Formats: sequence, C-alpha cells, structure tokens
Amino acid sequence: MGSSAAPWKHHLLNSLNSNSHLKHSIYLQLATVAPNGRPSNRTVVFRGFADNSDKIQINTDSRSRKIEDIKYCPFAEICWYFTDSWEQYRINGRIHIIDSTNPNPVKLQQRERAWFDSSIRSRLQYLGPSPAAIPSLKDTSFQEPSLDPLAGPVDAFCLLVLDPEQVDFLNLRSNKRITFASRCSSINGEKIWTSTEINP
Amino acid sequence: MGSSAAPWKHHLLNSLNSNSHLKHSIYLQLATVAPNGRPSNRTVVFRGFADNSDKIQINTDSRSRKIEDIKYCPFAEICWYFTDSWEQYRINGRIHIIDSTNPNPVKLQQRERAWFDSSIRSRLQYLGPSPAAIPSLKDTSFQEPSLDPLAGPVDAFCLLVLDPEQVDFLNLRSNKRITFASRCSSINGEKIWTSTEINP
Repeated sequence: MGSSAAPWKHHLLNSLNSNSHLKHSIYLQLATVAPNGRPSNRTVVFRGFADNSDKIQINTDSRSRKIEDIKYCPFAEICWYFTDSWEQYRINGRIHIIDSTNPNPVKLQQRERAWFDSSIRSRLQYLGPSPAAIPSLKDTSFQEPSLDPLAGPVDAFCLLVLDPEQVDFLNLRSNKRITFASRCSSINGEKIWTSTEINP
Repeated sequence: MGSSAAPWKHHLLNSLNSNSHLKHSIYLQLATVAPNGRPSNRTVVFRGFADNSDKIQINTDSRSRKIEDIKYCPFAEICWYFTDSWEQYRINGRIHIIDSTNPNPVKLQQRERAWFDSSIRSRLQYLGPSPAAIPSLKDTSFQEPSLDPLAGPVDAFCLLVLDPEQVDFLNLRSNKRITFASRCSSINGEKIWTSTEINP
C-alpha cells in the first residue's frame, strides 16, 4: 500500500508505448448506464489525457445515445485490453460532457483543441447524418461534405472527459493485479491515490 | 427490414472465422451495472453458443464481483471488437447465472459440459484464491493445486448465459451499421428478429 500522484498512469503509458505498433491499441470499451437502467458498451478512441492530468479524453457525437446515458448516470467504466502485452485496465469515474453549449470558456477552448487535434477525416464524421438513426431520403443522397481545415468545431462535436476514481490493472503474463483507489485531500482537494496488490 | 432466426449470428460466425488466427478474437468486453448503480466493464472469454442457440456462454468465478452486479441488475451488454476485420458487435440482453446451487438438472449438466470443455489450466483458476481479494497469508503461500481431469466442476465454477435481445453490428471498413431487435412470438414464444440498417 502506498500513495502518490496517479501511479497507474505510468503503467498505462508503458502499455500504450509497447502496443503502439497496433492501430487498435488506442481503442477502448466505454460502459455507461442507459436511461432504462441497463448497461451499454461501445468501442471509442483514446484522445489523450487532458492537460497533463490523469483525465481521459474521448470525442463523440452529441447526437449519439451515450450522451443520454451520461445525462442519466454520470459515471462510466473503461475496459482497455492491450492485445500484445496482455494487460487490462478498468478505469471507473465520473464522466463530463463538454459540448457547444458549455458556459465555461476554458472548457470550450479544451473542446476546440480536441477538434483541431483530430484529423480532417475524423472531423467530417460530425457533419454526417445523425448516428444510429434510420437513414432518411436526405441521408441516402448525402454528399461527402467539404470542410475548411481552419473552421472551429461544429455543433455535433462533443468532448467527453473521464475523471478516474478507481483503476484496476491486470497483467495476464505476470498474473499480477493491482487496484488503485483515490480520495480527495482534505487540505487542497487534490486526488490522493493508494495502490494495493490483489488476487488476479 | 426483415425477420428470421438470429440473423446476426451468421455475421458473428463469419467475424470469428476471419479473425480466428488472433488469440484475442474470442475476448470480449462485458458491461454490467454494479450495486452502487455505476457501470462495470471487463474482458471475458467467449465460450461458444449454448446448444446451437443464439445464447452466449461465458465462464466465471462465482466469487467475482460480476455475480453481485448480475444479481443486482440481470442485464448485460457485450462489446466485441474484431481487430482484423474492423467489426463491432454490441449484444444486449438478460444474463443468467448457472452456479453449483442451481436446482435445474438440465442447467447443471450445461455447467458440467462447460467445465469439461475448458482446459485443465482454465479449470485450475477456480481452485485458486478468491479473485480481487487482498492476498492472505494462506494465499501467498498458495501451492499450485493438482486437479483430477475427470473430476466435475468445483463450487467456484459458474456459467453465465447471455440471452440476446438487441444486437448492433458495425462494420468500420464498409461503414455499414445494422441493428437487430427481437420480440417474442405470440404463437410459440420463440424469438422473432428484425433487422434495420441505420446510420453508422
């Protein structure tokens, strides 16, 4: 048992590095709870940590169903399995929605940076028809839209930020499992992490 | 829109076949809802379909936390991403626990078959210390147990059976997405599936 600043992040950066030759190494599964109370689960792309913190960024379409899920229950669990190093991270925490209506200018800037950090191809998705909807006549005749590379985020572009509270790290090669838990410091409100080795 | 018997199963069998050279192609992420109302998510191994049906089998330890989750909320969503063919299946449905205390002899036989279908190495896991627990002095001095290959399932061995109600299939190469929904026939109670192409 010990305490330090996000000790699991060091492991995760190592895993990202040792699996970086695989395109799918930045794909992870994000579980939420739907308004009907059932779990939902989908693959999303890791878009880095927010400003050197331990907060995980994910881009999504504000018209997608996961937004309704997060408004209903603001918690998520990431399951991230690295296929080459046989390592799994389960990251549980509160998830924040930063969309075009966000009143905080700092958060809007963060969303804008995430937009410009995405490829033009990724950005074009947000100009397409509404995800998971039945195609309308308009959609089927949908022309590939053009996009000014200097234009800021469109309304459908939404940044999700997961603030980890608990992390479970399993290494299937060494058969080691560590659980990381956080609490808020009573002095400055900062997260304090403790880690414990548990049975795999 | 059309109706037939589990039309998504045919796609899934194709995906399993085209990704079978990858050890991790049978790994999927299972999301449940924990008793605190938050989602949980972990990698599990696909153990086949139950008796030629569309029901998905997963082996687990009856001492693992997912059992508590399923007792609290008996629904789960699988997210299964095939890294070579760029296909994703999201499979939502009710999940059933078949453990050693199950009163139904047919279900106990199904559990026994799942036990004997597992490798000796897999079976040995269920003789190990309790998963996610802090190792006790007993655990740290734990000797690799021996197992009679003809001995039936141990108490900790548990079969989970997911009965799909809704399936979302996304092919990232062709950018096609199909949603499959089921309802019970009013005539014989059998599941009737319909499929609809939706926006990716």
